[in-house]
Formats: sequence, structure tokens, C-alpha cells
Amino acid sequence: MGILRLSHVDITVPDMELASAYYTDVMGLIEVERTDGSAYLKCWDEEDHHSLRLRYSPRVGMDGFTFKVEHADDLEDLEIAVERYGMPVRRVARREEVAQGEGVRFETPSGHVMTLVHEVDRVGGLLPKIDPPAYVDGLRGIAPPRMDHLLVTAEEVGDASRFYIDVLGFRLTEQLLDGNGHQIGTWMERSHSPHDLAVVSGPNGGLHHFAFWLDDWDHVRKAADVLAYNGVQIDVGPTRHGITRGNTIYFFDPLGTRNEVFTGGYRPDPDFPTITWTEDHIGKAIFYYEGDLNERFMKVHT
Amino acid sequence: MGILRLSHVDITVPDMELASAYYTDVMGLIEVERTDGSAYLKCWDEEDHHSLRLRYSPRVGMDGFTFKVEHADDLEDLEIAVERYGMPVRRVARREEVAQGEGVRFETPSGHVMTLVHEVDRVGGLLPKIDPPAYVDGLRGIAPPRMDHLLVTAEEVGDASRFYIDVLGFRLTEQLLDGNGHQIGTWMERSHSPHDLAVVSGPNGGLHHFAFWLDDWDHVRKAADVLAYNGVQIDVGPTRHGITRGNTIYFFDPLGTRNEVFTGGYRPDPDFPTITWTEDHIGKAIFYYEGDLNERFMKVHT
Amino acid sequence: MGILRLSHVDITVPDMELASAYYTDVMGLIEVERTDGSAYLKCWDEEDHHSLRLRYSPRVGMDGFTFKVEHADDLEDLEIAVERYGMPVRRVARREEVAQGEGVRFETPSGHVMTLVHEVDRVGGLLPKIDPPAYVDGLRGIAPPRMDHLLVTAEEVGDASRFYIDVLGFRLTEQLLDGNGHQIGTWMERSHSPHDLAVVSGPNGGLHHFAFWLDDWDHVRKAADVLAYNGVQIDVGPTRHGITRGNTIYFFDPLGTRNEVFTGGYRPDPDFPTITWTEDHIGKAIFYYEGDLNERFMKVHT
Amino acid sequence: MGILRLSHVDITVPDMELASAYYTDVMGLIEVERTDGSAYLKCWDEEDHHSLRLRYSPRVGMDGFTFKVEHADDLEDLEIAVERYGMPVRRVARREEVAQGEGVRFETPSGHVMTLVHEVDRVGGLLPKIDPPAYVDGLRGIAPPRMDHLLVTAEEVGDASRFYIDVLGFRLTEQLLDGNGHQIGTWMERSHSPHDLAVVSGPNGGLHHFAFWLDDWDHVRKAADVLAYNGVQIDVGPTRHGITRGNTIYFFDPLGTRNEVFTGGYRPDPDFPTITWTEDHIGKAIFYYEGDLNERFMKVHT
Repeated sequence: MGILRLSHVDITVPDMELASAYYTDVMGLIEVERTDGSAYLKCWDEEDHHSLRLRYSPRVGMDGFTFKVEHADDLEDLEIAVERYGMPVRRVARREEVAQGEGVRFETPSGHVMTLVHEVDRVGGLLPKIDPPAYVDGLRGIAPPRMDHLLVTAEEVGDASRFYIDVLGFRLTEQLLDGNGHQIGTWMERSHSPHDLAVVSGPNGGLHHFAFWLDDWDHVRKAADVLAYNGVQIDVGPTRHGITRGNTIYFFDPLGTRNEVFTGGYRPDPDFPTITWTEDHIGKAIFYYEGDLNERFMKVHT
Repeated sequence: MGILRLSHVDITVPDMELASAYYTDVMGLIEVERTDGSAYLKCWDEEDHHSLRLRYSPRVGMDGFTFKVEHADDLEDLEIAVERYGMPVRRVARREEVAQGEGVRFETPSGHVMTLVHEVDRVGGLLPKIDPPAYVDGLRGIAPPRMDHLLVTAEEVGDASRFYIDVLGFRLTEQLLDGNGHQIGTWMERSHSPHDLAVVSGPNGGLHHFAFWLDDWDHVRKAADVLAYNGVQIDVGPTRHGITRGNTIYFFDPLGTRNEVFTGGYRPDPDFPTITWTEDHIGKAIFYYEGDLNERFMKVHT
Repeated sequence: MGILRLSHVDITVPDMELASAYYTDVMGLIEVERTDGSAYLKCWDEEDHHSLRLRYSPRVGMDGFTFKVEHADDLEDLEIAVERYGMPVRRVARREEVAQGEGVRFETPSGHVMTLVHEVDRVGGLLPKIDPPAYVDGLRGIAPPRMDHLLVTAEEVGDASRFYIDVLGFRLTEQLLDGNGHQIGTWMERSHSPHDLAVVSGPNGGLHHFAFWLDDWDHVRKAADVLAYNGVQIDVGPTRHGITRGNTIYFFDPLGTRNEVFTGGYRPDPDFPTITWTEDHIGKAIFYYEGDLNERFMKVHT
Repeated sequence: MGILRLSHVDITVPDMELASAYYTDVMGLIEVERTDGSAYLKCWDEEDHHSLRLRYSPRVGMDGFTFKVEHADDLEDLEIAVERYGMPVRRVARREEVAQGEGVRFETPSGHVMTLVHEVDRVGGLLPKIDPPAYVDGLRGIAPPRMDHLLVTAEEVGDASRFYIDVLGFRLTEQLLDGNGHQIGTWMERSHSPHDLAVVSGPNGGLHHFAFWLDDWDHVRKAADVLAYNGVQIDVGPTRHGITRGNTIYFFDPLGTRNEVFTGGYRPDPDFPTITWTEDHIGKAIFYYEGDLNERFMKVHT
């Protein structure tokens, strides 16, 4: 009944070899497929074909993001809902995108290219489905088990979020309000996690970061160890968010796209009451330990 | 659209003061309400009125378990589905149960009294909904943030599970098959966790255990420390399950009902492919570190 | 045979009630004794009378630090060695200091008042010495098990360190050299830990911080939670040192003295080979994750 | 001034390839040298040549254990002390043992062959001594940073321990007394850790286990994962000791010698007051979570 989860984020990279080396050796993803201009990567515990697409482009940016729906019918239902809202929808043909069935694509009010898809090739995770071990041997780098969420920027956070919520069925877990009560940040979910998609104030079409899930605080430390060992610039962390209560590190891939590793937080069902933050608590809302934001965190996006 | 999660487990205790002392002081739950014969308890991060009811009775046992549905309409839809399956359904009147709206109640094929409810009084968790801290001070005992799942016994695991799956919409995440390919254990979910409800071979109507969620492996250690400090008999653990991959401790409340603390595991969406275990791997399936089961684990239930 | 470990750090605080409230409620120390002008505090797992003395003074600063020696004879031996080195030594009479036997006191080349003592009143830790539990219930705040080390500043780090090493028998575990090969930081131990005493460039007589031991990375997170919850300003961390490899948080008590919580690191015996850092690696040496120092870390001391 | 720490344990293995495969691939040690009949292994953070010697023999057992002394003079001092106690001492010639200088060897009252040595070849740990990273990449298996302690059996624990304490200078951190007040277990240290050497009741000359140090509870979990993944039989754990308060797993190498991984515990200086356990607390003393011992733990040694 609707959207299941983030399927993949598609970013552009000016140096494919550097990007691929980072995402496989340092981040520990698996490169599943390489075409002329793109690399498709997945985390070790993900079943679907990929959760990250890297496309060569002279400019760092985001091509768009794709969410997976539960039923084939959901595509049509959501297509109608989006069109009714007034956004043109384009059907993406089966196999037009690597390893994907038919999709629907549209621009969101926040200026992002969003695709919904139902069929994705199953390549399977690293563990078998019959009598699996509980432990995976030989992982390298950070090796998150799966992609978790992304945060995009929008000029009008409230308008952008209403679309995701009213039209696409996202549920609002947390919101940050300015002094006038207008939303300047929203956190929304479809998968019973604190957020699958979040929006903060910024230019339309921007990507603030995408995030990989880690299993616990010790994995966060190991991630920091791996990042430092490999000379990756840490933006903030290890620290904790007030929003989501999760533990986190922000850092940049070698081309400049911000990554996050994230763990913890509560587990919200659809009846979860929205948590509201006031702007004077923005410091603790974003970085609970530091109590304030660095300039870079607020200004840099791709 | 259907069942959200386990709402509460209702057990009977021959010594209310002892049971209440254990569940508040050692387990760290909050006693929300006490009536003539019953105590209602919740975990610190739960919003609803209670997740555990203790009712005085000279005999240790389970009165039943209640799941919460997402929409008011779900009650009627599921009532029809259960009746169509051939099980009589009784409407539970609003406020017939403490802090609850109307419900539907029926006996499952595994001989358990199951109730579905939509409205539950909100008493709120320990953290406010406006500018909350990310940390709760002053918790005592184990203090799990929430109830997680329960495991019941059934003479015919396959029949019992088909009801939960086909009629109530549970999704099968894992199954354990005997040498003839018959299910002798099933793990099912509604909340995008590895299991909300599980069934293993045993007498109809039995409760093997119910489980509280912990946030990580360090919380598992602290739980073991608290249990040992308070002289609570540990059944198995700290250890890990092959099934769910979660980390765990089993132990008994002072009246003899088995409790579990549980953390970890994957996070399954509805498109999660079922994992199958063969009986010759039952040891690692249940206790990955030990590789086999103790007699008590297989024989003792309430 | 010589110095055992850091016994206590004596600091001055312009507001005794505020300081005492912080060190007991937030840091979780135990106030063992209060005299007219001073409060004596210890960690829960320490046997000796105190590891921190707070003395009222309008000015924040350090009165000095005291190390404990193993044998009564060590006092005289070290007294002779210090005098031979040319520093005047004063005998501190039995009970001149609260809860202490006779001591020897002198000014070190780095301008710090250092005392050596053998007898200290035993008040015992929180756990009994007969059939103790392995777990302590009811601790509040950060509750470190013990004091770990202190870092002081000196105009001439090399001269200061030679005294500690050649005269007092400290062993050099790590050193930071400037471009000319001169020591600008030294880390020294007596207790088979990475450091009991460290010296970095700065004014003579200064205190950079003293540090409490935590048992693991999870305790570091809890410390950050407690600090943030109580509004304590975190200076840096949670992070990791290159030097010692330990995990750490730096922060300030409410009067402005820097505290650290520290865990991990290797365990050096006297045959441990010294690790050397070159100044161009100073960033990773001090903060392995960040790779550089903040201004405050280098400039602020008391 | 005397003994520094456990240098190496020398065991016999009936299948060298199997033993070497286990200690390198599963335990994650480094095989430093292989001679005709022996393999020499070390942990990644150890500087000295080896901490474990495997010697081919048709029978599983222990050849002896070696402790390292701080100064060359200590060898002679301790030789005199041992001889004065009445035990014959043999000088082991320089290079008679692989990678070692001259040693003194004797049989202890508990019937163990003990060697003291001062010079051991330095092969260095995996991290450099100039500007090292804080993190080691590419470790496999459990990969403990270092050997920690060993536990031997003796018919007369009290007599055996008096020798280690009175003659060799070990300090008694904990003791277990039977109902008549006689020692049936002793834990002794030289390196400011809870134990470098322990003795429990059993046949003279027996080895109960030797133990590797792990850095924290999360490393204990990973060790259990690696053991289970590789089909290694776990004896007990993950659990906690009452004695030492450390967290632990016991298990057997494929030839039948018991191994332990151990972390935590307090850090005792020489002024640490001995902790005493009475026999009626033996269960919690050894396994704090379980509260009792399994038969195998008490009966099996090599």
C-alpha cells in the first residue's frame, strides 16, 4: 500500500574511478554493475540491485532519487495522485533504467526528480536464505548493511513536505519550526524508521546528504576509524542528533557529496506523534552533543 | 491498513506484589495504573497506556495478547476476515478493557485469545514532544524502551501460522522446517521488524516468552548485570539468534513466565524474502553461539 | 619501588556549591569530606580517600597535584633525588593534608607544585572486598570508576619531562617533536597505562586538563549524553586520540577547568618502546578523527 | 624490578596444520616463525617475538610458560630466590629457545615448568612507532591485541600460590576460599591487571586455559560471532566473571586446549586490597551471569 522505502540515490561524479574506489574500499559497498557511464552499488545486506548510482558528469550533483512501492498498483495510484496535484508525470519504460521495471517519474515541488518503481532486480544480500550464518565474514571498510535515508533542500520546506505527505503518503515524524511557526525542516518516513526522507531550507533541487545505516554505536566508532585511516574529511561527529535521537557522523565523499552514517533512534509506527522543535533549539536538534551547527553543515550541499 | 504492532501481553501472576516489584524495579517498567486485580505497565518510550497487564490468579499463565490496528475500519475488516475463516468473534466494548476503545476478540487456531484494538489511551513516553532531550535521565533497572514481540506455542505450527498470515496479514520472515518440510517454527511481522509474533511447536494456548527491545549489545550486557545483581535466573544468554540475527537473553520473572531482552536483527520491509531453516540447523537457528538448545528452552512455557 | 599513580589533583573553584554540584551530580563523584574551605571527592571504584580536591578561591586554578608512592622508603629516596636535582623539598607533616600521611613537596621545573605521599586513608570503593557483585547499582551521572591522568603545560617541555623521567622515574610512552626535534609534548606513565602525566607547551604552572577513566566507548557515549543533557559545554569529542589511541571527550566544568573522559589505548609495560610524533602530524596525533586542533584546545588552560 | 608480564605459553598440538590454521585464521594471530617442530605466534599489538608456541606432540598438553623480567639483574635475583626456596634452577642458554636470550627455568610447586627471561627479540607490532594510525586495517578473525594471562591447576593451591607470591613477587588480587578457609583459587598479577597468572584446584602441572585480551564488550561479541561462524565449540559465554569483573568467553582450540577471550576488570596497583570469595559464592565468582559452573569447566584441563 504505497511507498516502501528509499530504493536508490543517483548522484553524479566527475571522477568515476575515484568515486568507485571510495564507495567500495572505504564505504565498503559492492559494485554490482558498471555500464558505459554509470556504476551501480549496493550494501551487503540489501537484496535489490543497487541503492546508489554513480553517473559520470563533469559536475557533482544529484540526478534524482527513487523510492520503491509495495504493489504494482501503487504506481498507478500514486501517478494519479501526483498528476492530480498538478505535477506532470512521465512513465519510465521497463529496463529504461538498469535493473528496473516500469516507473513513474516527476519533479517534486522542491525541484527534485523523483521516481517510483515497483520491480527491481533481486541480486540478493551476502547471506543465503537457507540456514544462513548470523555473521558475515570478510567485509571491508565501513560496510553498512543498507542505505537508510536522504535529506534534500527546498526553498519552501512546508510546500515541499506537504507534497510528500499529502500526495505520496509520507508520515511526519519530526519538524523544525522557525519563529513564525513555519517549517524549516521536516523528517518523514514510510518504513517505520525515524526518517526515509527529510527536507531542510535551501535551494530547490539540492542534496544535503544521503545516509547509510549502521547497527550500533560501536559501528559508528569503527566508521570514524576507517574514515580517519583513509584520510576522509569528517564534517561532524561522532555525535548524536536531537532529532531522531540517532548517532551519526557526517563526512564527504572525495568528490564533495556529503555522506552520513546513522544508527539508533526510536521506531515509529504510523501512529507516532510528531515531535516539534523550535528554532531556538536548532543546535541541540541537529547536534545534541555540540549544541550548535557549523557553517559548513548549513551551507554546503550538492 | 491492518495490524500495526503488538499492543500488550496479558499474563497472570500468583503474587502481584512480587510481580510488580520485579517488573518495575528490575525490568524498569512504569506502573501506569493499578485496579483491583490488575497492574498495567509500560516501557519508558511507549506512548500507549500499557504493554503488559499483570492479573492476579493462583496460576501462572497468559490471558491473551492484543495487537493494535492502524485504522478504525481495520477492526471491521479483520473481524469479517476472521469470521469468514470460521472463528467466532466477540466485540469487546469500549472501556470494557482498561484504557481501550472497542475491540474484536477471537480464539486463534493455536488456541490463544487474541484481541485487536484501534483506540488506546495515550499517556505519552518519558520524553516531551516539544524540544525533547535525546537522553532520559534517572531510568532504573533494565529499562527497555519498548515491548517488542511474543512467541507462542501451537500443536500445528503450520495451521496456526496460516491464520496469522492469510487472515490477519502477518508476513513470514523466517520459518523452521522439520525433515518432512513441515513448519515447526514461524516468525512473522507487521512492523518492519524481524518478528512481532512467532509460533513454535508446543501445546496450544502456551506462551513461550515475550520480549523487550534493547537498543544495542551494550544494553544487553547491562541487562545481564542487572539480572545477576538482582538474583534473577538467566535461562540462556547473552547470546545471538541465527533466526533474526538478534542478540538476546532469556530469563524468568519470579513467578515463572519467561522474558527476553532482544536487540539487533535486520529490518524487513514487506518485500523481504523469507529465510528458511532446516531442522538439522535448529541449534544455530535458535542459539547461534551455543549451537544447541537446552532442555528447559524447549520444554518450559506458561 | 617508586611512584604508583596519580593520587589527587587539587584545583581552586570560585563557587564551591556550583563546583560540588557539578562534580557529584553530573560527573558522578562521591563527596567524601567537606572542610571549611575544601571538598574532597573520589570516584566510585577508588579505594583511597579522594582523587580530587576543590578549594575555594576567587580564581580558577590548580594548587598542585599529588602522586602516591609504593613504599614508605620511596618518599625519602625520591626526596633525595629531587634535592640532588636542585629543587628544594619541603616535608609535609602527617595530617597536614586531610586524610594523608607524611609527604614531600617541591616545585617541578615546569613550575607545578607536586607532592608525593605514601599513606592515604582508605575509605574503600563502593564494592565490598568479600563476595562482591560485579555490578554497581544506582550510580548517577557519568560515574567514572577512577581518575586517570593529568596534562600540564610547561614553557620547556623537554626540561620539564626530563625531571619527571630522570628524577621521578616516569617512563616516556609518546612524544611530539617540533620541526627541530624538540619535545613540544610528552606522555609519561608509572602505572602501565598510556599516561599518568603529560606535558605540552604552554606557560609554566598551567593545567590543561585532568581526566577520568571510562570503561569503554559506550560509556563515552553515555558521558556525552549526560553532559549534553546537563548543558555542559563540550570542547571536543566524542573522538579518538592518535596519541594513546584512546577515545575521549573534552569539556569544561562550570568554573572553567577542562575535564576529560578517556578510555582505551594500549597497556604499556616498562619495556614499551616510545612512540614519536612529528609536528606535521599534530592534528591526527591529538584528534585522530578531526585531524586538526581547535584554537580553544591549544589556548585555554587554567 | 622483577617480573613484567606473561611472555609466552608453550603448548603441544597433535596436528600442527590444524592448530596453526585455527590460531591464525580464527584467532587472528600472526605466525612469526616456523621451525621443524614448532610454530611461534604473536598478537598484532605485541612487540616481542611470540606469545604462543605450538610444538608438535602426539599428546595435547603444555610444555610450560615463560614470564619476562624487567631488568637483566632480575634473572639472577629470582634464580637465587627460587633456589633458596628449594627448587632446582637450570640456566637456559642464549638462543637455546628461539628468539630469546638467557633464561632461568625451574619447576614450580604446582608442577609447572616455568621460565624467566629478560631478552626477547623485538619484531614489533603492526603499528609503526613514528606517526602511527590509531586503527589497524585488514585484521582477520578475532585478532586480540595481546595475550593476557593463564590459569593453571595445582593440588595445593595455597602452596603453589605462596611460591608465586613470596618467591616471584606476584601480588594476590583475588582468592577463593573453601569452607575451611583454604585457598582453592588464587588470582595474581605483576602488570597492574587483575591477573597475569591464576591457580585453581586440580592436578599438578595442568593448564586450565590461557587468555587473550580484547578491548571491549563489542569485541567479545565479534569474537563469539567469529567462533560460531567457524564452528568452534564455545564452552561458556559471552558472560562476566565475578572475579576480576571481566567479560569473557571460554572455548576450545581444535585440539582441545581451552582458550579465553577476556576484557574489562579493574586496574590494580600494588596497593590493591585482595578480594576474597567464599566457596558458597563460587558460582557467581566464576560466572556472574549464570551463577554456577558447568561440569566441563571444572573438569577439563590439559
